[in-house]
Amino acid sequence: MCELLGMSANIPTDICFSFAGLMQRGGGTGPHKDGWGIAFYEGRAMRCFHDPNPSVESEIARLVKNYPIKSKVVISHIRQANVGSICLENTHPFSRELWGRTWTYAHNGQLEKTLFDWPLNFYQPVGTTDSEYAFCWLLGEIRAQFPQPPEDVCELADFIQSRCDQLRSLGVFNMLLSESEHLFAYCTTKLSWLTRRAPFGEASLKDCEMTVDFCKETTLNDVVTVIATEPLTEHEQWTALTTGQMVVFHDGDPLLERCARG
Amino acid sequence: MCELLGMSANIPTDICFSFAGLMQRGGGTGPHKDGWGIAFYEGRAMRCFHDPNPSVESEIARLVKNYPIKSKVVISHIRQANVGSICLENTHPFSRELWGRTWTYAHNGQLEKTLFDWPLNFYQPVGTTDSEYAFCWLLGEIRAQFPQPPEDVCELADFIQSRCDQLRSLGVFNMLLSESEHLFAYCTTKLSWLTRRAPFGEASLKDCEMTVDFCKETTLNDVVTVIATEPLTEHEQWTALTTGQMVVFHDGDPLLERCARG
Repeated sequence: MCELLGMSANIPTDICFSFAGLMQRGGGTGPHKDGWGIAFYEGRAMRCFHDPNPSVESEIARLVKNYPIKSKVVISHIRQANVGSICLENTHPFSRELWGRTWTYAHNGQLEKTLFDWPLNFYQPVGTTDSEYAFCWLLGEIRAQFPQPPEDVCELADFIQSRCDQLRSLGVFNMLLSESEHLFAYCTTKLSWLTRRAPFGEASLKDCEMTVDFCKETTLNDVVTVIATEPLTEHEQWTALTTGQMVVFHDGDPLLERCARG
Repeated sequence: MCELLGMSANIPTDICFSFAGLMQRGGGTGPHKDGWGIAFYEGRAMRCFHDPNPSVESEIARLVKNYPIKSKVVISHIRQANVGSICLENTHPFSRELWGRTWTYAHNGQLEKTLFDWPLNFYQPVGTTDSEYAFCWLLGEIRAQFPQPPEDVCELADFIQSRCDQLRSLGVFNMLLSESEHLFAYCTTKLSWLTRRAPFGEASLKDCEMTVDFCKETTLNDVVTVIATEPLTEHEQWTALTTGQMVVFHDGDPLLERCARG
């Protein structure tokens, strides 16, 4: 299994604090030593750092931890391989372009092999993971349904959730997905989120000795949501998603919360 | 205008030496201070570092210079903006997936605005540069002509060259393109290449005081070609491409050299 980390914020915000916790789980406090990656949106563009090496000892992870890249949407993943060997092409997050936007995706879980029989139309996987295959299928479905972006994000969210439900029928499908503005979080087993806003307090990481006083780091208007497989901090109130639930975040706030359906 | 740097090698090789020269031109010895990027292939996968900041003062460029990432195909670009503002989405190299391979592209030059009337079928630009638009058009043409990869790379090369010729009718189109195995280099005005193989000697960068003795860095079987807008070293014999010429490199060697046609 793997761990996911996502962020949605209303102003460009760095994720150094949360990432410092996550990278400890990549071979330090956790067993997810089979590579890691992080995608930062800056406007409609995205930059991604990928490394098949364990994050706890990665030069590139050190850079990301120490060099604050400010972003409104972030998706990160540390990997403990199950399907697909340990190599760059199997390292999340994965990305593809649709509607002139870069879509980014990371998955935690494992899906039955019959997934590989599902037909792909537009997008083909580069690597051999079930995760990337599922992404190619999902984005191809979105593209076929919406050749142009729908005006109402609810319509898009409904459609994405219905396709995630299909993927969940094959196993564990916890997912983070974004097209640069919205962050779609879908849960099968484990995904929790936390919104920080004024009045800000202190937070301490579970995985290493690091405390941040967000009062000093933020303005009164900042709203920042962090989503993670397991809560990253102590003494803060994380909300767990339920099975089949999807939450769509926009500008740091949960825009839509949808329970499991059907 | 901008500067391009590419590499093709028969074994995974780092590009730290050449990149050290190129990054000086990004706000140091050259005016190309409007961002930079570098894409490394590792097998079929690619990882890319992008930074809209000048390379000469970039934290990320320092990482790339000092942390040897070994690759058989590299494409890099430093930007002096003409069309499109300075931001991440306008920072080369650009990439898209076709045939389950990540295609990467960087462009030096400027094309007439009528380019933006050329129809796009599959790929849409995320940013506003003529360069990315041309890439979306070119890759869409390749996809339409070859829904599956052709068996003969000559056929692919012929087709790419014919479409590059069309782009050249709109202005200056110097380009590096790869699908992970082959490096396609197309020239309108400025592009030079150099192959290093045994017996290896020393090389000194033009843009900063740095000398490498490749004897110490290589084995007898290594073959490495470097392609750049302007030769990066002194006392080595670089070959300039001619207008309309395309050279396809594979495993460090020029596989196909095609003169301007028609």
